[in-house]
Amino acid sequence: MTKKIIFDTDPGVDDTMALTFALRSPELEVVGVTSVFGNAAGPVTAQNALRLVELEGNGHIPVARGADQAIVLPALELGTEVHGEDGMGNTDPAPPKGKLADVHAAQFIVDTVLANPGEITLVPVGPLTNIALALRLEPKIAELVDEVILMGGAAYVPGNITPLAEANIYHDPHAAQMVFSADWKVTMVGLDVTHQIVMDNARFDKILAADNPAANLLRKIVPCYRNFFDQVYGIGGAVYTHDPSAVAYAIDPGLFEVRQAPIVLETEGRCMGKTIADEEHRWVDYRSTNICVGAQAEAVLDLIVGRLTK
Amino acid sequence: MTKKIIFDTDPGVDDTMALTFALRSPELEVVGVTSVFGNAAGPVTAQNALRLVELEGNGHIPVARGADQAIVLPALELGTEVHGEDGMGNTDPAPPKGKLADVHAAQFIVDTVLANPGEITLVPVGPLTNIALALRLEPKIAELVDEVILMGGAAYVPGNITPLAEANIYHDPHAAQMVFSADWKVTMVGLDVTHQIVMDNARFDKILAADNPAANLLRKIVPCYRNFFDQVYGIGGAVYTHDPSAVAYAIDPGLFEVRQAPIVLETEGRCMGKTIADEEHRWVDYRSTNICVGAQAEAVLDLIVGRLTK
Repeated sequence: MTKKIIFDTDPGVDDTMALTFALRSPELEVVGVTSVFGNAAGPVTAQNALRLVELEGNGHIPVARGADQAIVLPALELGTEVHGEDGMGNTDPAPPKGKLADVHAAQFIVDTVLANPGEITLVPVGPLTNIALALRLEPKIAELVDEVILMGGAAYVPGNITPLAEANIYHDPHAAQMVFSADWKVTMVGLDVTHQIVMDNARFDKILAADNPAANLLRKIVPCYRNFFDQVYGIGGAVYTHDPSAVAYAIDPGLFEVRQAPIVLETEGRCMGKTIADEEHRWVDYRSTNICVGAQAEAVLDLIVGRLTK
Repeated sequence: MTKKIIFDTDPGVDDTMALTFALRSPELEVVGVTSVFGNAAGPVTAQNALRLVELEGNGHIPVARGADQAIVLPALELGTEVHGEDGMGNTDPAPPKGKLADVHAAQFIVDTVLANPGEITLVPVGPLTNIALALRLEPKIAELVDEVILMGGAAYVPGNITPLAEANIYHDPHAAQMVFSADWKVTMVGLDVTHQIVMDNARFDKILAADNPAANLLRKIVPCYRNFFDQVYGIGGAVYTHDPSAVAYAIDPGLFEVRQAPIVLETEGRCMGKTIADEEHRWVDYRSTNICVGAQAEAVLDLIVGRLTK
């Protein structure tokens, strides 16, 4: 049976890889895409989301634009240094043909979940603002969503935007607190595992050498992203496979190893954005998150490469 | 060549094991013991430190009493739930015969380091208050100490007194910040490694079955400590080998695996006491700490058992 997902995204280079990967995977049915600020500004990521569904003939999938800013925090720096001002590696892409849905992303999530009780998996790979807003618009979705599989956080490893915080979570820690503390099944595909899933040059070049619309787009937009990784992490053109790993989890959770603990957010001060694993339930007694801490990395990478080169 | 150490301690059950282990190890020469509040109150740990040097004929080693409270923070809860009100498992031990040195622990550290330039290793296994005060009394000791090998902190693993903080560091995070940021060689033997070094029942019982003054004392004071571990961690009578692991590192660093990063302290709020590994030097540019992240646990445990049963 295919899994119905709403893909919440701030494209973004690895978002592009993740969404095209999802759209090319028969295990998943993308019933909607919602956009959020993060890797680039809100209006930019909305247009990119639209471009990405149109890229390979999926223009029928609704795209709803969501939050331009965090729920509580003032605007923080966007990820444009990594992803380009246009979220597409500064390649000035052509405007999309279609139109955005006439509803806010949060309302789209609520409506879709209510219409498909028990069937929707939310896959947010940007700041969690839309998901948190949806919870506040209609708290009942907590019991009607099948699972939330999110890319974000760093429970047992250092962060990437600060020494403690991962970027998606850091951009809206209050939203993250709402999502992690709600009574639903949450799986966190964060740096604990994505820093173990490194797309090596050989595999990456294989994707970029493929002849299909997804690969053709990636070939254009990837250099900016790859350069950033090279300069900051010095891993020789290889990149951490953040967002696509969340999609891989949605396809085959068996490839991942999880550890259970409720996640608490620090929302202030220098530790802001830290996803604290309260393993012994000292601070909170709400539901534990499935924290991905390991993966069959080669198998995850092969799955991604296989789908993007077909 | 033997390594001259000053053992800074808040005895404390595992401190007892650690100090008797150090005193029974020919690789180390304990040139002084300094006491600090922590597992029990300052006056209590001072008397215990004196008892411990006298236990096996080392009454000639000076014992200097140090801090009764943290440098900045108000008094926090002591570790008496784990170690007993008397720091000796509520066994009401006889008073020591000798006297404390007529000098504060911090001054004792300064004097000893100045008199033995380049030769002293500090081994603090409690809150870092005395070490930080010594640095403030005489900043020159930073360049004259051979190494600081401390038990404390949790860089990549959860804490024990809070979900983020290890107890020694939490009891005086400002002191810890001074120690980690000073320009000297610091090795952190924290929960990252001590939670991997579990004294199993077979080994523990072997120590307790030995007939020597250290073992005879441990037999009396250990039940309180062991019960606590059993209730809180449910590891069936086994205990984490915190303080003795720092001594094992002083004897044979080759048994440990380290990772390098400067450590930054959170000194406020709910994350207080978190030892943040700033791996990419985003926040600070001072010297990296050697963070123990792995060990040949069996070999460390065998070393401890061997020394305490001879």
